[in-house]
Amino acid sequence: MASTSSRGINRRAVLSTLAALPLLGGTMPRTSARAQDADPLPSWNDGAAKQAILRFVQATTDRSSPDFVPPEARIATFDQDGTLWVEQPMYTQVVYCLERVPAVVSRRPELGTLAQFKTVLSGDREAVSRLPLKELEEVLAATLSGMTVDEFSAEAKAWMERARHPRWDRPYTELAYQPMLEVLRHLRANGYKTYIVTGGGQDFVRTYAEQVYGIPPEQVVGTAGGTTFGYDKDGRPTLTKEPRLLLNDNNAGKPEAIHLMIGRRPCAAFGNSTGDRQMLEYTRAGDGLRLAMLLLHDDERREYAYGPAQGLPETRVGTFTPALYDEAKSRGWTVVSMKDDWREIFQPSIGRAIK
Amino acid sequence: MASTSSRGINRRAVLSTLAALPLLGGTMPRTSARAQDADPLPSWNDGAAKQAILRFVQATTDRSSPDFVPPEARIATFDQDGTLWVEQPMYTQVVYCLERVPAVVSRRPELGTLAQFKTVLSGDREAVSRLPLKELEEVLAATLSGMTVDEFSAEAKAWMERARHPRWDRPYTELAYQPMLEVLRHLRANGYKTYIVTGGGQDFVRTYAEQVYGIPPEQVVGTAGGTTFGYDKDGRPTLTKEPRLLLNDNNAGKPEAIHLMIGRRPCAAFGNSTGDRQMLEYTRAGDGLRLAMLLLHDDERREYAYGPAQGLPETRVGTFTPALYDEAKSRGWTVVSMKDDWREIFQPSIGRAIK
Repeated sequence: MASTSSRGINRRAVLSTLAALPLLGGTMPRTSARAQDADPLPSWNDGAAKQAILRFVQATTDRSSPDFVPPEARIATFDQDGTLWVEQPMYTQVVYCLERVPAVVSRRPELGTLAQFKTVLSGDREAVSRLPLKELEEVLAATLSGMTVDEFSAEAKAWMERARHPRWDRPYTELAYQPMLEVLRHLRANGYKTYIVTGGGQDFVRTYAEQVYGIPPEQVVGTAGGTTFGYDKDGRPTLTKEPRLLLNDNNAGKPEAIHLMIGRRPCAAFGNSTGDRQMLEYTRAGDGLRLAMLLLHDDERREYAYGPAQGLPETRVGTFTPALYDEAKSRGWTVVSMKDDWREIFQPSIGRAIK
Repeated sequence: MASTSSRGINRRAVLSTLAALPLLGGTMPRTSARAQDADPLPSWNDGAAKQAILRFVQATTDRSSPDFVPPEARIATFDQDGTLWVEQPMYTQVVYCLERVPAVVSRRPELGTLAQFKTVLSGDREAVSRLPLKELEEVLAATLSGMTVDEFSAEAKAWMERARHPRWDRPYTELAYQPMLEVLRHLRANGYKTYIVTGGGQDFVRTYAEQVYGIPPEQVVGTAGGTTFGYDKDGRPTLTKEPRLLLNDNNAGKPEAIHLMIGRRPCAAFGNSTGDRQMLEYTRAGDGLRLAMLLLHDDERREYAYGPAQGLPETRVGTFTPALYDEAKSRGWTVVSMKDDWREIFQPSIGRAIK
C-alpha cells in the first residue's frame, strides 16, 4: 500500500496523536561559513521577500541598530510540512504510519479485525481517504505507540532510508526546499537558534532533522504523545510511547508549545497554513522588529499549487486559506511566492534532475 | 508571613502544579575560559568525587578515548533544589507562593473565605505546615495561574530581588553552591549543554536560571502547567497560565520530561533525592561512560544535614533516603559529601561572610 488522495488526509489535526523518540547524532555542520560568502540566499530571486529576510537579519544583529537583538534572544521558528519540505500529496509521516500498519497488525492481530485497519490493509486509496478522521487517528496512533522510544526511532530511520516520494522517486529527505535551507543557514550564521515547530510528530521529525536541516533533536518542537518510564525484563530503564496526546502542536498549540519548550518569544517565524497563524501572530506581537513569513504554493510545474493559488474554500483545515492571505497582507507579514521568489526549489543536483 | 517548618513542606510533590513564563535575556557568559585555568574545580577538595568529574569530562571529550562523545550529544542534567542551591528550610518557590497569597486573595476575594487560604493568611507557620497536601497544592496553584506568562515573570523577578533567606539574610540567588557552579562551567567549557531538570516550576526557575547558573530558559526543564493562547482587550496575543498540570517533573517524570524536552539521553546527571532516582538510572543505562552523582547534605555547620546523614525514614518523599543511598552504592553512582568534598559551599564573598 502507499498513498491516498490528499483530499481526506490534508488535515493537520490528523497528526495530533504522534509520539516519542530521539537519540540522533547527525553530522551536518550547523553553520557553514562558506555558504555566507557573497549572497547568503542564492536560490532566492531578488524581490521583497528576499530583501525582507536580509534586512531583518542585518537589523537584528547590528549592534548600532535600534532593532539589535542580543545573541541569546535570537530565536527563529519554522513550521515543517509545506514550509521546509514538500507536504503533497500527503504528509510524509502519514505515509509512514499507513505503511507501518501491516507490521503493527501482525504484532497485534486483534487490530486486524477492526474496519478501519482492514481498509488501510486493503490498499484502496480512495477508501482510506474516506475514513472518518477519528478512525484514521486510531490507525495512526496504533503505529506511533506501544514501542520504546529507541525502537520507534530505529523503525522510522529504516523506513526513511527506503521510502520514496511518488512524484520524484527520491527520498523524502532530499525534498527539503533549498531556499529554506539557505534561510536556516543564514540565520544560524548570524547567531540565531533555529527551531522546527511542527504539527508533525516530534519523535518522528527528530530522527532526521539534524541530517536534513542541521537542527538537533532538542530544537524540534512537535506534536507529542506521552511516554512512560519503566524497566525491561533485564531491569534496564525504558521509555515507552503512549497513545496519550500531550502536545497538539497546531494552531494555538504552537505558541503554547513554544512557551513550554523554548520559553522565549521568537524573533522570526515561518509557516504556510492556518496551523501557523497563531505562531506568526505571537511572534509579531513582540517588541522591536519581527519577521513573519508565509509560503504560498503557487508553482504547479516545479512543485504544487494549492491554497489561495487555487481559490480553495476557507473551511479546509491546515491550508493557506484566503482569509489567512488577507490577514498576512493586513498585518504586514511577508508572503513568499514559490513561483516568483524561488530560483531553485530543491538542492541543485535534484533540481537539475527533475526539471 | 514567611516560612513554615520543613516538616509539612519538604515534599517534592507539593511543587506539582507550577506554571509558565520566560522571555529572559540574562547577561552571564555561559562559559568562562578564565575559570578553567589550572584547576577547574577549586572549591572541591581532592577526593573520589572530584576525580570522578574530572575523569568523566576528560574521557568523553578526548577523541582518542573509547568513551569519546561527539559534541552534539554532550548533555548534562541537574536537579535544582538541594543540588544546585539550598532547599532548606523550604523550597524557595513555596516561600514565593505563600508570600503571594495576600495579593492573590485581594484580586480574587472569594478565595479568602476558604479555610486553607485563611490559614496561610494567618501567618501561623505551624498551622500551614499541617495543611493537607491537597489543600496546600490548591493554594500554590492559585498563585501560579490566572495571569499571563509575562505578568508572572515580572512578579517572580520582583519578588526574587527583595526576598531573603531566613538563615543567611541573603538573596536566594546568592545561595547557589559554588562547587556546582564550577561543575556547570567546566562541563560547558568542554562542549556540554547543561540543563536544569527540576521538580520546581519551569516558569519560575526560568526567571533567574540564566543569571544564577548561566542556563538559558530553553535549557530549563521543570514541572509545568499548561497555558492558553488568547488575545487581550487590545487584540494582542497572550499566553495565560492555567492550573492544569502538564508535566510533573519528579521521579519517573524526569526521564519522561527529558525525552520530551531534550530528546537525548544525558551523559551525566546530578541529583540529591529520590525524586532524581529515575533520571540517574536512565542516564546510567546509556552506552559508554556515564556520570551519576548524588549530593549528600551532611554539613549542619555550613549548610544543613538531612537524609541519610540524619537516618531519616524511607517513607519521606523527595529526600535522600537510606534506600537511595544503598542504590547509589550498589550501582556505582558517586555520592558527594558536602562536608568532606566541598572546600567552599557558596561563592567566596558569601562564604567568608557567613563562616
